[in-house]
Amino acid sequence: MKSDQRGRVISAPENHLSAVQLRGARPSRRHFIRSSVAATAFAASGVAGQTSGGATLVPPWTRSLGAAVVATGYGMPSKHEVNVQRRQSPGLTPQPQASISFTPLQNLFGIITPSGVHFERHHSGMPEVDPAQHRLMIHGLVKRPLMLTMDDVMRFPSVSRIHFIECGANGGMEWANVAVPTVQYTHGMIACCEFTGVLLSTLLDETGFDRSKGKFILAEGADGSALTRTIPMEFALNDVMVVYGQNGEMLRPENGYPLRLLVPGVQGVSSVKWLRRLEVGDKPWNTREESLHYIDLLPDGMHRQYSGVQEVKSVITMPSGGQKLVGRGYYEITGLASSGRGKIKRVDVSVDGGRNWQTARLQEPVLNKALTRFRLDWNWDGAPALLQSRAVDETGHVQPTIHQLRAVRGVRSIYHNNAVQTWRVQPDGEVWNVQVS
Amino acid sequence: MKSDQRGRVISAPENHLSAVQLRGARPSRRHFIRSSVAATAFAASGVAGQTSGGATLVPPWTRSLGAAVVATGYGMPSKHEVNVQRRQSPGLTPQPQASISFTPLQNLFGIITPSGVHFERHHSGMPEVDPAQHRLMIHGLVKRPLMLTMDDVMRFPSVSRIHFIECGANGGMEWANVAVPTVQYTHGMIACCEFTGVLLSTLLDETGFDRSKGKFILAEGADGSALTRTIPMEFALNDVMVVYGQNGEMLRPENGYPLRLLVPGVQGVSSVKWLRRLEVGDKPWNTREESLHYIDLLPDGMHRQYSGVQEVKSVITMPSGGQKLVGRGYYEITGLASSGRGKIKRVDVSVDGGRNWQTARLQEPVLNKALTRFRLDWNWDGAPALLQSRAVDETGHVQPTIHQLRAVRGVRSIYHNNAVQTWRVQPDGEVWNVQVS
Repeated sequence: MKSDQRGRVISAPENHLSAVQLRGARPSRRHFIRSSVAATAFAASGVAGQTSGGATLVPPWTRSLGAAVVATGYGMPSKHEVNVQRRQSPGLTPQPQASISFTPLQNLFGIITPSGVHFERHHSGMPEVDPAQHRLMIHGLVKRPLMLTMDDVMRFPSVSRIHFIECGANGGMEWANVAVPTVQYTHGMIACCEFTGVLLSTLLDETGFDRSKGKFILAEGADGSALTRTIPMEFALNDVMVVYGQNGEMLRPENGYPLRLLVPGVQGVSSVKWLRRLEVGDKPWNTREESLHYIDLLPDGMHRQYSGVQEVKSVITMPSGGQKLVGRGYYEITGLASSGRGKIKRVDVSVDGGRNWQTARLQEPVLNKALTRFRLDWNWDGAPALLQSRAVDETGHVQPTIHQLRAVRGVRSIYHNNAVQTWRVQPDGEVWNVQVS
Repeated sequence: MKSDQRGRVISAPENHLSAVQLRGARPSRRHFIRSSVAATAFAASGVAGQTSGGATLVPPWTRSLGAAVVATGYGMPSKHEVNVQRRQSPGLTPQPQASISFTPLQNLFGIITPSGVHFERHHSGMPEVDPAQHRLMIHGLVKRPLMLTMDDVMRFPSVSRIHFIECGANGGMEWANVAVPTVQYTHGMIACCEFTGVLLSTLLDETGFDRSKGKFILAEGADGSALTRTIPMEFALNDVMVVYGQNGEMLRPENGYPLRLLVPGVQGVSSVKWLRRLEVGDKPWNTREESLHYIDLLPDGMHRQYSGVQEVKSVITMPSGGQKLVGRGYYEITGLASSGRGKIKRVDVSVDGGRNWQTARLQEPVLNKALTRFRLDWNWDGAPALLQSRAVDETGHVQPTIHQLRAVRGVRSIYHNNAVQTWRVQPDGEVWNVQVS
């Protein structure tokens, strides 16, 4: 088993001691068979030797005392998993403080993203915020402005919800067919965690804000860029949260510790980290991060602004770019889908570049504005294949092809690329990022 | 905000700069009010100063460049959260290799337990298993014995499910009213993660096992104790999994890396870690860990054996033992419930030692054999209070009082204490672990 940035190798070499060779003829889930090589090896070693503990197959760690439980501790992954890491894309940004690191989607299971590899996007580096000194101010068109300590925020009634956060620029390089090699770099600015905090509507109720005048919220971060974004009130009063908890513990520093906004379904920049200020106003603020950046430049030279919802999207994470299939036979194709508009309704998978589609299994529970894991059984016959996934959400939105998207949006966008991703499986089993004509 | 082993302090001191003082009269969610102290402080500082960046309220981390994104990395909690740790109970076990560390439930949010603080229970220390050398053998009453590498196991069709794991001894010291001080030590041998792996039924199908004869499975770990447990076939074919993924990444070393059994709803010892062998047989094995340990000694001197299901249970984690309420007013009572028989149907909370009960809110989604977060609004009037929670599961089982449990099971048990827990709130706000008469 190898787990590096190219992704876990999907199967053992053919000369490996292995009892599972996967049937070449039928793609059913139920048709695994033993290899005769493995059966021989197993018979020779003998069951008695295994169970008595006297055989050489008993590994050294079973014949020795393991490590003690420590008095106090915080656990880390195995040293064998050290290559499962967030990775910066070399040269992508001129300054490491205004940069990105990507989530290793090719190594992940299920829908929960471990906090340790949740992607990062900072505009002025990661501040070291002292929670005892941190304050959240809520002001503007409100009757009672508030200045809250962390203790104050954490005393309000709370909710916990599993949501994805995706940077609006995720997939940005694919607009112009740059074709970065792995899913970590094509789609790795997305993550999904269980967040805990206070509904923004609960905090706004406390201020007695004027619903007839207050139409927008400005959120400001406490980082050096004082990053600011406008949030329409219909989002703010719906499911926006002020969160301090991430996957059961306090937010990680790079994810806004001790407090961030969470705007479910909307591009990540709106989920302002290190949140220090919320202002209620009557019009959008048109700040730097919503006028110079996070806009979509269209073919006619105009730009789309405040285009925040992350539309329905999916990607196959295994097999994916940089991985290698070691032989014909059974593989489980698996990946992740999401929609900023609600739940995923269906994911279809093609192995021939979109000519034929099969409906994938969705892992339950399928949650609102959360990643959804899909899986499909596949029997690779050794011929070149073009793997694609196409998601449909509960509102009926269908994930477009890159050609459909370019026809409307051109190639000068950076943001909001939710196109179908294609991975080409070569006859030698190597998997490449390609765009199909 | 403080987070040490006594738990996060629930509210700020009364002389703290705070905009939230919580209404003393009505326990509704909607009746937070500002304190006049905070309103004055806020008016004096001025909104203009806040927004222009020139006021002294702008913290130092907003006026400087933060830390760079690193080329490759794996994130850790903030240094301010360093006291949120697993903790061993000093003196509980004579050997640190056959010991326990407890999950800090008082510091956690939602239902996902961070892998870094998932409780530990080892019988011969934590082995350092090389995944490339690890094998899983499946043999016994099967037509085709299997010897699987990790690559083999990970190539089978997979599922991801959120389940709790609870040590059968969780709460063991409460049988005899030892009353350890905090919820970390009373209930901290429970955790809940998203696990990914292969259904055991899928692997058994591959062996062509004889359903008429194969009635039990023996699972054996690769640690120095070669820990073995019998699993009835009705569990094995239902929802038992062979898992390699935990909260999106590979299992942590202390949780069985690279492979463990997961027997949802059954005491943790059956979810054998570092899984190396599964044997199909026709009767229970009566191994050391199911004859000398993990049995319930009854008042008449007999013992209950193979009593694995973790019955319906709940505990309030905030406020809980060792925490201190800093004044009268609103608090959100919150805690965790679970049942080894399925979903939680209802949790009731009492603040007067069980005389009166109110139904708590359950956080959706409520999942099968997973932790369920409950919450109830409470207005503390400053008088002594006895906080209790009582869960009911979908099969109709009701969590018993400790007196009901002792009447049947006596006081010589170590295992399977699912009694209602009582926390006493003293007039000074201190919270103590007590047992009510």
